[in-house]
Amino acid sequence: MQAAKSQLVRMLDELGRITDEPGRLTRTFLSPAMRRANARVATWMRAAGLSVREDSTGNLVGRLEANCRAGSPDPAGGSETSGVRRPRPTKTLLLGSHLDTVRDAGKFDGALGVLLPIVALGELRRRGVALPFAVEVLGFSEEEGVRFASAYLGSKGFSGRLSAADLKLRDEQGVSVREAIQRWSALTPARFGRLEKRVEGNALHLQANHRRSNLMGYLEVHIEQGPVLENKQLAVGVVSAIAGQTRGRLTFRGRAGHAGTTPMELRRDALAGAAEFVLFVETSARAVPPLVATVGTVAVEPGAPNVIPGEVTLSLDVRHPRDDARDAALKLLLYAAGRIARRRKLGTTWSVTQDNPAVTCSAPLSAALTRSVVAVQGRSVELVSGAGHDAVVMSALTPVAMLFVRCRDGLSHHPDEFASRADLAVALRVVGDFLQRLAREQSS
Amino acid sequence: MQAAKSQLVRMLDELGRITDEPGRLTRTFLSPAMRRANARVATWMRAAGLSVREDSTGNLVGRLEANCRAGSPDPAGGSETSGVRRPRPTKTLLLGSHLDTVRDAGKFDGALGVLLPIVALGELRRRGVALPFAVEVLGFSEEEGVRFASAYLGSKGFSGRLSAADLKLRDEQGVSVREAIQRWSALTPARFGRLEKRVEGNALHLQANHRRSNLMGYLEVHIEQGPVLENKQLAVGVVSAIAGQTRGRLTFRGRAGHAGTTPMELRRDALAGAAEFVLFVETSARAVPPLVATVGTVAVEPGAPNVIPGEVTLSLDVRHPRDDARDAALKLLLYAAGRIARRRKLGTTWSVTQDNPAVTCSAPLSAALTRSVVAVQGRSVELVSGAGHDAVVMSALTPVAMLFVRCRDGLSHHPDEFASRADLAVALRVVGDFLQRLAREQSS
Repeated sequence: MQAAKSQLVRMLDELGRITDEPGRLTRTFLSPAMRRANARVATWMRAAGLSVREDSTGNLVGRLEANCRAGSPDPAGGSETSGVRRPRPTKTLLLGSHLDTVRDAGKFDGALGVLLPIVALGELRRRGVALPFAVEVLGFSEEEGVRFASAYLGSKGFSGRLSAADLKLRDEQGVSVREAIQRWSALTPARFGRLEKRVEGNALHLQANHRRSNLMGYLEVHIEQGPVLENKQLAVGVVSAIAGQTRGRLTFRGRAGHAGTTPMELRRDALAGAAEFVLFVETSARAVPPLVATVGTVAVEPGAPNVIPGEVTLSLDVRHPRDDARDAALKLLLYAAGRIARRRKLGTTWSVTQDNPAVTCSAPLSAALTRSVVAVQGRSVELVSGAGHDAVVMSALTPVAMLFVRCRDGLSHHPDEFASRADLAVALRVVGDFLQRLAREQSS
Repeated sequence: MQAAKSQLVRMLDELGRITDEPGRLTRTFLSPAMRRANARVATWMRAAGLSVREDSTGNLVGRLEANCRAGSPDPAGGSETSGVRRPRPTKTLLLGSHLDTVRDAGKFDGALGVLLPIVALGELRRRGVALPFAVEVLGFSEEEGVRFASAYLGSKGFSGRLSAADLKLRDEQGVSVREAIQRWSALTPARFGRLEKRVEGNALHLQANHRRSNLMGYLEVHIEQGPVLENKQLAVGVVSAIAGQTRGRLTFRGRAGHAGTTPMELRRDALAGAAEFVLFVETSARAVPPLVATVGTVAVEPGAPNVIPGEVTLSLDVRHPRDDARDAALKLLLYAAGRIARRRKLGTTWSVTQDNPAVTCSAPLSAALTRSVVAVQGRSVELVSGAGHDAVVMSALTPVAMLFVRCRDGLSHHPDEFASRADLAVALRVVGDFLQRLAREQSS
């Protein structure tokens, strides 16, 4: 286990140096660094006994067939293939996360969820443990939305949800997703054409990869990117749900005026109204966890030190693991905004910019994962993921579960992102225990 | 009086069409439109019996000697002269305001304070009233700070407070104040050199224009640019003081974080702290009029809808007619900012960007003006000017008084700026009464 932990840390370090930007970690969808990263991760997969392929969206797929033991050959005899391949009828468990990063990233976000399963499977192999089901470790090529300002391109491709509109997205250099995929996979137009036909039918890879009924589920290991585990002094916790999210813009409209000549009692200050609202958002969300609500941007018009704000537009981001609770909270906040505005003789406008329903993690998978967490660290804790993950997209394909690993100061998307060796060891043991627990459950 | 009122409205209309920008009113310091405006106003001054000159800062000066009656020749025999002229030892009352405008301006701001005294003096002349003191009507060339991003260049030049640093200011075309003045006045370098020597001694025109002891004071008529008179349903009011002003930047520093993954109770949201402060500013200033305090700008870092604000910088503008009250209010606000920040585990930084002491209007002049207001409209009201005016600079030279005229919706710096004919008539009568009142007081 000590060796496995050290191996994982070395792999995270090495992968964290494979970057498109010298001096800092940036690895975007289908970039040169991603090519090198996939190649390196593929060698680690093979060393752990997995056969490796890459799908045409650049997702890396390492597969361990059922009942494979250390040293036993891959029963399917497969190794490197590029593109489409028929699924096997054995039950398959998916584990994974993404291999792309934000700009100037840390080395844990995404990478951990790909590398840790590889190490865990290698460790089982070393101990001569075979699983009665196949396992695929997935390194998704896109989750952060950096290159095309659109997230989940990798898991969407893998799960057959890449749309024709997605393929038309263009990066800053004017390259479309379609062109990027063609170049990456060196697909002939005819071959891409065949893929694309399936895209129009909203299923780029799904049929080729898996039948839904063959899948046992998807487990994603990820750093928490928040402070809850740190606060509870626990290494890992189990995600019960990925919060639904509503994002929008709220405008308060008052009357601009001279900051020197307009007495206080005659003002219709849009910023004062917005300030009341910001505090109400904070107070309300504090009162009913796990609701989180955030005002992250404020734009003041006309925006001069000597002019009373005539119009203020702020962003509102509301998240809750239960959609009805999120809806109710949003209604309350907007009702309050209206009341505040009316009292102050202000106008308001609300417009939604994003609205994602919550994803509930699989109860049986999460129960098994929780038992593994309790077995390893004594107790478990249920967490809600406020951030989106590949599991959101994968949940349309198969039941999902997530294991969160404590990260220092809840810091993420930053080079100082950090998870301790001790915590990684706990996560490794939990995943090992989880795999064997599923094996026992399937056998019994 | 009906005729005088109509004349004033016509003059305001005509002057309001003399612009540097077709389609909207913009007239900046020493611009071609200002040349035309000065020429037009000069004809009106002469028609009212005033002799006209222009000083080298482009200020238009119309002078009516003491004891001049309708039809009587100017005792000094002067008409147009450019440049410096020896003062006469008679007591002189100054009335005026500025002839420049902001961009896309209204036609009352500034212009009213120049044109109304001309019409009032013309009306006295028509009625055969002579004043026992000389009167100068001043049309300052610069008050708004548009061309050189520095205000009061006209009144500073007139009152000998134009500094060497002011002369070095450059406009967007790279032309300095010195160059603009030289071109405007077609001054030979030698002649400008002599002027400049006085500039170094911090007195460009003062010695040439007036001895302080010869001056009776300065009266400025101006639209209110605020809603107090409208609210009190009064046409005019008397300014008791021009508020002192402190302006600065206040920063709240918390911790940025993921809006989805950071529970409410673990946040250090800089914007929530700033919002509390904004409301405290409003509440405090409301409680103790005539204090006004305004947060007019807000900058949020990092400023993304899904990121908790880590740092918020806002502008604070605090004004009060009494400097000690302004100081005390500012101290209270900053103390509160510190308390709010400490409770929320935020840091704060405060930096002052502007600090102007208050100007108190002359008690005797304001008393006389108030008596005239009461005589004309039945009652008076005391106002504090929250905006700066030429009177601020003139107060260093001579006692000042200001008459405010109601403007619709308190609107100013906007083409819809409006003062009614009825209110202009009241102001005209007040100024006429005031001049005769001073005459009686001087005679008695």
